[in-house]
Amino acid sequence: MRDDNDNKMVQCPTPVQQHVNITIAHGGGGSQMHQLIEDLFIKIFDSEELKRAHDGAVFNGQKKRFAFTTDSFVVSPLFFPGGNIGSLAVLGTVNDLAMCGARPLYISAGFIIEEGFSVEMLNQITHSMKIAADKTNAKIVTGDTKIVEHGKGDGVYINTSGIGIMDHELDISPTSIEPGDSIIINRDIGRHGIAIMSVREGLQFETSIESDIAPLANSIIALIENDIRIRCLRDLTRGGLASALTELAGSSRLHFVLEERSIPVSSAVNNACEILGLDPLQVANEGTFILFAPQSDAEKALNILRNDLNWPEASKIGRVVDDENGLVTLVTVLGAERIITMPAGEQLPRIC
Amino acid sequence: MRDDNDNKMVQCPTPVQQHVNITIAHGGGGSQMHQLIEDLFIKIFDSEELKRAHDGAVFNGQKKRFAFTTDSFVVSPLFFPGGNIGSLAVLGTVNDLAMCGARPLYISAGFIIEEGFSVEMLNQITHSMKIAADKTNAKIVTGDTKIVEHGKGDGVYINTSGIGIMDHELDISPTSIEPGDSIIINRDIGRHGIAIMSVREGLQFETSIESDIAPLANSIIALIENDIRIRCLRDLTRGGLASALTELAGSSRLHFVLEERSIPVSSAVNNACEILGLDPLQVANEGTFILFAPQSDAEKALNILRNDLNWPEASKIGRVVDDENGLVTLVTVLGAERIITMPAGEQLPRIC
Repeated sequence: MRDDNDNKMVQCPTPVQQHVNITIAHGGGGSQMHQLIEDLFIKIFDSEELKRAHDGAVFNGQKKRFAFTTDSFVVSPLFFPGGNIGSLAVLGTVNDLAMCGARPLYISAGFIIEEGFSVEMLNQITHSMKIAADKTNAKIVTGDTKIVEHGKGDGVYINTSGIGIMDHELDISPTSIEPGDSIIINRDIGRHGIAIMSVREGLQFETSIESDIAPLANSIIALIENDIRIRCLRDLTRGGLASALTELAGSSRLHFVLEERSIPVSSAVNNACEILGLDPLQVANEGTFILFAPQSDAEKALNILRNDLNWPEASKIGRVVDDENGLVTLVTVLGAERIITMPAGEQLPRIC
Repeated sequence: MRDDNDNKMVQCPTPVQQHVNITIAHGGGGSQMHQLIEDLFIKIFDSEELKRAHDGAVFNGQKKRFAFTTDSFVVSPLFFPGGNIGSLAVLGTVNDLAMCGARPLYISAGFIIEEGFSVEMLNQITHSMKIAADKTNAKIVTGDTKIVEHGKGDGVYINTSGIGIMDHELDISPTSIEPGDSIIINRDIGRHGIAIMSVREGLQFETSIESDIAPLANSIIALIENDIRIRCLRDLTRGGLASALTELAGSSRLHFVLEERSIPVSSAVNNACEILGLDPLQVANEGTFILFAPQSDAEKALNILRNDLNWPEASKIGRVVDDENGLVTLVTVLGAERIITMPAGEQLPRIC
């Protein structure tokens, strides 16, 4: 099944200390800080580990491989079509675990909150985090809160780190990519970046474009359980498809050849990119990934993605060839071939 | 042995891109970001996991318990007597693992950097992180970099999360504290907070006061290896001794009785607190911890701390009594008894 994409702003059943704003005292280590942590984090995240009020969470190890990842989120605006910084913070890290081939287990949450920030808004954000964590069967088990003076932050920044476990023996890594592998994408590109930019620039497009933000772990687990020999995975966040592929081509020292006609881009995103002067290949995503697998597994993987996991736009977008040049080239719809480079200069700032 | 306390600013052997400042492009997911990550993080932190350039680090599990913790650091100023935000970020998280009774293994590092921040300073900070990690035998294995516009941060904020492993069967936790336990501290209190305040307020004291910042894991491991039955541990960070004890008394629903004459405070810190109008019990520390152990283990623990681990001021500061009132009381040097409360209102902001 496809992970549900519904990470919109949450109605809070019991808003805590509404209409109050964060003060410096909320970060001082005293009673106000403890009340804030109790009301907004321990109650909402609702994990046994947090309730123990210890310096960290303790869990039992297993003789399997684990993955460990971290991401800070500074997205602006904090709320955008399809999600908010809270759902983004949890799903971003859960997806990084998924890209290692891991099943997400534990999430940490570190908040850097600007003095004056609305407690009600923080409440909405933490509720979204809880909903996102529940969807991925991950638990928020440890956290931290810091308050900075007004003008030294921008509402709230959130760091999440995550631990996941590997239920398989695959070596999913840039170094596992081999000549002949197919490059497959799960869906159309560019939605997250355009959703953020449309709010930030106050743009209205014909059809509203929502972020593609979605949990990806269940899709990856299903592919592995169906014996797809995944060599490498990468979610297409900052810098988009272009950045992910050029980085992987560089690490693997192989040549990736893309077919422009096979890369799914919605007409809404294409139109918005034209207006904004952006290349869809370089625009950020938050629920979009590429996978490398042997050519003989490609059709089966596409079938599973399209039919079982509800990614109807899943597509084989290219292949790996045996030139040790570390290049990514694109065969355009007109048949010309051009080199894809890593984006340079100012991209879209604070997209995640 | 005592962990070495020398976390001062580091001389950088090969400064990278000196005199350059961070730009928004360094966070865009493109070539500048990759160059920054390569030069300042992968080269300096120098771990196999980071070099793999994957979305997370992968490690082998063990059938032991693990601890997982997170902390964000927003200390101001970034450099202070005894350390900087880099050493603080690594040692703060490593110490939280130690307070769970865990041996630190893996650290993540998430940077939120303000546009315009000096690359040279960032280089000093990352070198300090590497030195601090090496001291504690922990590896920085995964990271993330975000850039925010000038005026939306304050130089650099760092989140570190950490994973450690338990080599013992003790249940070190607030719920393990028992009536009759002794409360032991490793050293004199208040140095970190006063070190920060003295820089911030431009104060010069007779003797310069350095932060107590130090790695604590080796001390905890040595106590456990010497069969001290540790019930609970807590490092005294924001809110100081008063905050840690009132929180633990509340969680354990027991009554802690402290002896004021046994709480080590240097005259330098005492004098500074008088000038600044602070209570040393409420001032932050970064290398100071309390431990709860059965009274019958107290003398042995003190001997190990003072003689083997080089904490000469280690002291038994109080005991746990069987009133289920969750209170902390202090018997003053004059014999009166007063209730210690959690600090309220604005404490020292941005102390860690």
